Amino acid sequence: MEEKGISRAVIKRLPRYYRYLGELLEDGVERISSSELSERMKVTASQIRQDLNNFGGFGQQGYGYNVRYLYTEIGKILGLDRTHNMIIVGAGNLGQALANYAAFERSGFKTIGIFDINPVLKGVSVRGIPIRMTDELPEFIRNNNVEIATLTLPKAKALEMAKLLADCGVKAFWNFAHTDLNLAMPGNYIVENVHLSESLMRLSYNLTRYESEHKQQS
Amino acid sequence: MEEKGISRAVIKRLPRYYRYLGELLEDGVERISSSELSERMKVTASQIRQDLNNFGGFGQQGYGYNVRYLYTEIGKILGLDRTHNMIIVGAGNLGQALANYAAFERSGFKTIGIFDINPVLKGVSVRGIPIRMTDELPEFIRNNNVEIATLTLPKAKALEMAKLLADCGVKAFWNFAHTDLNLAMPGNYIVENVHLSESLMRLSYNLTRYESEHKQQS
Repeated sequence: MEEKGISRAVIKRLPRYYRYLGELLEDGVERISSSELSERMKVTASQIRQDLNNFGGFGQQGYGYNVRYLYTEIGKILGLDRTHNMIIVGAGNLGQALANYAAFERSGFKTIGIFDINPVLKGVSVRGIPIRMTDELPEFIRNNNVEIATLTLPKAKALEMAKLLADCGVKAFWNFAHTDLNLAMPGNYIVENVHLSESLMRLSYNLTRYESEHKQQS
Repeated sequence: MEEKGISRAVIKRLPRYYRYLGELLEDGVERISSSELSERMKVTASQIRQDLNNFGGFGQQGYGYNVRYLYTEIGKILGLDRTHNMIIVGAGNLGQALANYAAFERSGFKTIGIFDINPVLKGVSVRGIPIRMTDELPEFIRNNNVEIATLTLPKAKALEMAKLLADCGVKAFWNFAHTDLNLAMPGNYIVENVHLSESLMRLSYNLTRYESEHKQQS
């Protein structure tokens, strides 16, 4: 499948298509028209046709999309057709929560190691994976094909840890620390930041607007 | 402060300005020029000037921005100048992780209740807050000013719970369930979705691209 020249905006929307197509599959739906998908996703049918045309137009007029085919092909583009080994660095609540998400593993993201500096956690198992001490990281990465490091540690420690992991050969970082790791790690690294507090602030902004509008009306 | 007519794009960037200004304050920096801030944030100085001009232009030529003033004013726009009472529904790992984030409370988001359906969790305390059973929710909401409900429960339960909470008067939802709650809750509700698996898929997409380019080169 040709994927060159697909715009960033389309790429950004792919995970959402993938999720809806997965739900359709779960519901036993084999074919869907762009207008039905449009109704579900609250995206215009013309946007859907345009987006999915990027992938060679599996849709046939009056026939709809083959759900499984589209799901599989989008999965390939997203790199979900194979397993990615992942480690989690920082075994606090969030790290353990992510380690417990079986859904990630079903999508191919396999947690093969969990690390922390707190000796109290040494050997504690999360979903069958023992928590190791961070000084074991270099050896662990040498012996295992670690593609992704999830960073669930304090901001002050995140950059230093990311650099150490990068030196060991880790290429991709899923960063939950409250810092823009992508700016601090220039060069050939993949960084995806998740800034939960910024999400909460957007909610707060919208709530504040809503309440002030509501007050004006009443 | 006049905030009407500020574009959504600027609003979206505000939490990030807020974070950088907060870090500057922590570092004891009182004034900063747009070019210094530009260097830190990797945004053009002209974008910074344009964005911050929306707030009445506190910057003075050759003098820079008053960090504390700007931080405070952006905080007000984001609704961070007062406390928001929040409950967490779903006391699994993720729910407990969020309850343990003291940083949210420092920003004014105060977790006043945690709820679950699992009787094993009843009375267990997280950061001093006892986990309650969900059947206590209506009464709890009647007796407390709950503004925000954080939903850390399975997709299959999220919508039903959100509707119950909405009936009890909750206006804002911070949704971690793997579903587009905003589409299912039309009307006057504030919904902020956090789709972690979509974030992981974007990372996977970028990693896959990176690896395929790297393979071509070698």
